Amino acid sequence: MTLQREIEELASRAKAAAPAVANLGTREKNAWLLRAAERLEAARERVLAANRDDMREAEAKGLAAPMVKRLDLAGGKWRDMLDGLRQVTQLPDPVGEISELRVRPNGLRVGRMRIPLGVIGIIYESRPNVTVDAAALCVKAGNAVILRGGSEAIRSNLALAEELRGAAADTGLPEAAVTVVSTTDRAAIDHLIQLSGLVDLIIPRGGRGLIDRVTSGARVPVIKHDAGVCHVFLDASADAEMARAIVRDSKIRQMAVCNGLETLLCHEAAARRVLPPVLKALHEEGVEIRGCARTREVFAEAVAAHDADWATEYLDKILAVRVVRDMDDAIAHIQRYGTDHTEVIVTNDYGNAQAWTRRVNSSTVGVNCSTAFADGYRLGLGAEIGISTSKLHAFGPMGLEELTTRKFVLFGEGQLRE
Amino acid sequence: MTLQREIEELASRAKAAAPAVANLGTREKNAWLLRAAERLEAARERVLAANRDDMREAEAKGLAAPMVKRLDLAGGKWRDMLDGLRQVTQLPDPVGEISELRVRPNGLRVGRMRIPLGVIGIIYESRPNVTVDAAALCVKAGNAVILRGGSEAIRSNLALAEELRGAAADTGLPEAAVTVVSTTDRAAIDHLIQLSGLVDLIIPRGGRGLIDRVTSGARVPVIKHDAGVCHVFLDASADAEMARAIVRDSKIRQMAVCNGLETLLCHEAAARRVLPPVLKALHEEGVEIRGCARTREVFAEAVAAHDADWATEYLDKILAVRVVRDMDDAIAHIQRYGTDHTEVIVTNDYGNAQAWTRRVNSSTVGVNCSTAFADGYRLGLGAEIGISTSKLHAFGPMGLEELTTRKFVLFGEGQLRE
Repeated sequence: MTLQREIEELASRAKAAAPAVANLGTREKNAWLLRAAERLEAARERVLAANRDDMREAEAKGLAAPMVKRLDLAGGKWRDMLDGLRQVTQLPDPVGEISELRVRPNGLRVGRMRIPLGVIGIIYESRPNVTVDAAALCVKAGNAVILRGGSEAIRSNLALAEELRGAAADTGLPEAAVTVVSTTDRAAIDHLIQLSGLVDLIIPRGGRGLIDRVTSGARVPVIKHDAGVCHVFLDASADAEMARAIVRDSKIRQMAVCNGLETLLCHEAAARRVLPPVLKALHEEGVEIRGCARTREVFAEAVAAHDADWATEYLDKILAVRVVRDMDDAIAHIQRYGTDHTEVIVTNDYGNAQAWTRRVNSSTVGVNCSTAFADGYRLGLGAEIGISTSKLHAFGPMGLEELTTRKFVLFGEGQLRE
Repeated sequence: MTLQREIEELASRAKAAAPAVANLGTREKNAWLLRAAERLEAARERVLAANRDDMREAEAKGLAAPMVKRLDLAGGKWRDMLDGLRQVTQLPDPVGEISELRVRPNGLRVGRMRIPLGVIGIIYESRPNVTVDAAALCVKAGNAVILRGGSEAIRSNLALAEELRGAAADTGLPEAAVTVVSTTDRAAIDHLIQLSGLVDLIIPRGGRGLIDRVTSGARVPVIKHDAGVCHVFLDASADAEMARAIVRDSKIRQMAVCNGLETLLCHEAAARRVLPPVLKALHEEGVEIRGCARTREVFAEAVAAHDADWATEYLDKILAVRVVRDMDDAIAHIQRYGTDHTEVIVTNDYGNAQAWTRRVNSSTVGVNCSTAFADGYRLGLGAEIGISTSKLHAFGPMGLEELTTRKFVLFGEGQLRE
C-alpha cells in the first residue's frame, strides 16, 4: 500500500468514527480520560523505556542537549501529563451547549448549538506529551484526532497511543477516535493536509519550517501556531517599578516561549526616567540589550539594534529596545514589525489604556500585566491546545471551545417561509 | 506592470487601509453607508446604463436568459440594494464589543473583544448587487474589502464601485476600504488567493468551478459557500398536513437556492399515510418525483431514483424520495450523501426531535419548519454575507459578527505570572 493510500485510509477510519465520537456523553468521555490515565500509569515502565530509546537515538544522532531534553517524559513531565488527563475531566463539556436561543417574530425558536469539528489533525515536533494532551482535548470536545509527532519521538508517541487506544476499547469509544501516524516519513504530512472532506482542521505546532510546509500545501483549513514578536510599550506615565517587574517577567520568566517579550518600546518622555532602571536590571541578569540610538543615549551598555532586530523572535536572552515619539508611533511600529501575538502597555493614563485595548489588534492585548498571561490556563480557558496566530475561528490561546463550531438549531411548530 | 504585481499592489493598499477602517466609529461607518446610498441614487442613470451594456453584451454572447436576468440592476433590485445600505446602518456595530469579561484569581480582568478580520476578499459571479451588499457588510464590520465579480458584470461593478469609493472620500474613509478588481482576467483570482499576509479571508460565492478553483489554489483562509443537498425527514409521527406544507415550502418556494429541499426521507411507518398526499401535491405543481422502490409502491407517478440522485443538488423541479427504516437510517443517509447544509425533521415525537437536533451536525438543523429558514435574515442575523459550508469560524448563515474575530483584552494592575 502506498503511503498516500495508507494516510487516506487512516483518515477515512477517523472520519467514520467521528459521528460516534461527536455523540459521546460527557460521562463516557471522562471515563475514557480516567481509564487512559490508569493504563498509562500501569504501562509506565514500558512507555518510559520506549522514551529512553528515543532519547538515546537522538543523542546518537547528535541532537543538541536542549532538544533531547524536550523529548524526556520522565519525572515531573510524566506526573503533569497524567494530571492533565484528570484535569480535562473537570472541564465543562462544550458539546451540545445552546446559546443565543431567541424567538423570531413567527414563533420559530432559533439557537446555536456547539458541536465538534469532526476530525482534527495535529502536527507537532519533539515533546511527546503533546500526544496525550492534544488527544485529551480533541476527544473531550467530541472530535476524532489524528496525531503526527516528530520522528525523533516516534517510539514514545506509539507507546502512548497504544494506551490511549486501549482505553478507548476498554470504555466503548471507537478506537479510531485517536490515531497516531506510525510512519516517520515526512511525506505523510503532505498527504494528510490534502485530505479535504476527511480532515476538518489541521493544527501545526512547531518551527517555521513545519508551519510553512503545512500552510503552503494544505487543502484543509489550518490554524497556525506561529512565531510571536511580542511588545511591551512603556507609556509616558508608566510607573518605573511596575515597568521593571513587567518587563522582567515578560522577558526572562521563560525564554523560549512565543509569548515572551522581544521588543520593548518606550515613550520618549519616559526614556530617561524609566529605561535605565528597567534595562539595568535585565542587563545584570545577562540579557543583551540591542537599542536604537536614543536608547543607547540613556543606557550605555546597549549595543546598536539593526532593522532586522525589530522583526526577530529571539527566544533568547536578547531584547530589542526602541524609543518612540508617542503611543501612535508605538502602534505603528507594532503594525509594521509585529506578528499580531501579544502586546502590553504599561501606563497610568486612562485614555491611553482604553485606546491601546481598542486599537492594537493582536490576539492578546494587555494593560499593566506581563505578556506571559497569553496562555490558555492563565486566561481561564482551563486548558490550551496552543496559541493561534490565525485570525479565523480562533485567535490567540485556544481551549476546548475553539475545538468546536456552532450550528443553528430551529424549533418550530410548522413555520413556513412563504 | 504584470497582473500579479497589480493585484499585490491593490491588496497592499487595502492592507494599509485596514487599521484605519478597523478604528472607524459606528457613526463614521453609517455616514459612509448613507452617503453611498445618496450617491448611487444620484448616479442611477449612469450605473444603469453601464448595467444595460453588460446585459447587452451578455445577450450578444448568447448567455441564457435567466443568467442575463441575474445581471439586471433595474427596478426592484435597485431599490432593494439601496434599502440594504440603509438597513445596514441599523445593525449593531460588532466591533469593540467585549464579552466574557471575568476576574482571574490574581485580580487580572480578562475579556474578549470583537475586532475586524482585516482585509476580506469576496469572489462572486453575475449579480452585481453583491458588490454593494458585500461592501456594506464588510466595512460595517470594520474590514477593508476587495471585490472580484464576474467579467459579465464588470461595467456594472465598476460603476457601483466608483460611488462606493466616492462616498468614502466624501466621508473621510480611506478609499482603499473598498476595491473592485478592474481586470476581467480570471488569473487575477489565482493571484488574490495567494496573498497570505495581505488578505485575511477569501469568501467565494458561486458555482462549483469557482469554489474548486479557489479552495485548491488558496494560501489565504477560505470560507466556502458551496452546494446544499438539503433533507426533510418525515418521522413516523409526522402530521400529514404539516408535512405537506413544509415539504412544499422547502421545495418550491424558490427553486435555485442552496437551502432548497433536494431529498425527502420518510419513516417506513409513515410512508403509506403521509407520502401520497405530500407527493401528490408537489407532483400536481409540476415537480418530478424520483423515488426508491418503496416510494414507488405508494406513489405510482414516481420514476425510479438512482444512486446519483441522493447526492444531487437539483436546484430544479425534481425531488428525490426515499423510504427509510427509522431515524437512525435517515441520519445515516444524510451523513453519507448530505453536504452538512440544512436538515429538517417533521415529527411529533419529543425524544426524536431532541435527538435530531443533537445528532445531525449540519449547519442548520430544524424541527417542524421549512428548510428555507436557513437564511441570515430569517434567523435574526440582520443581514447575510452568505451561507458558509465550511465548519471553521462560521458554519451556516453568516452575518456581521462572522466578519469579525475576537482578541483577548487584559486589564491589569501590575500582575506578573511568576
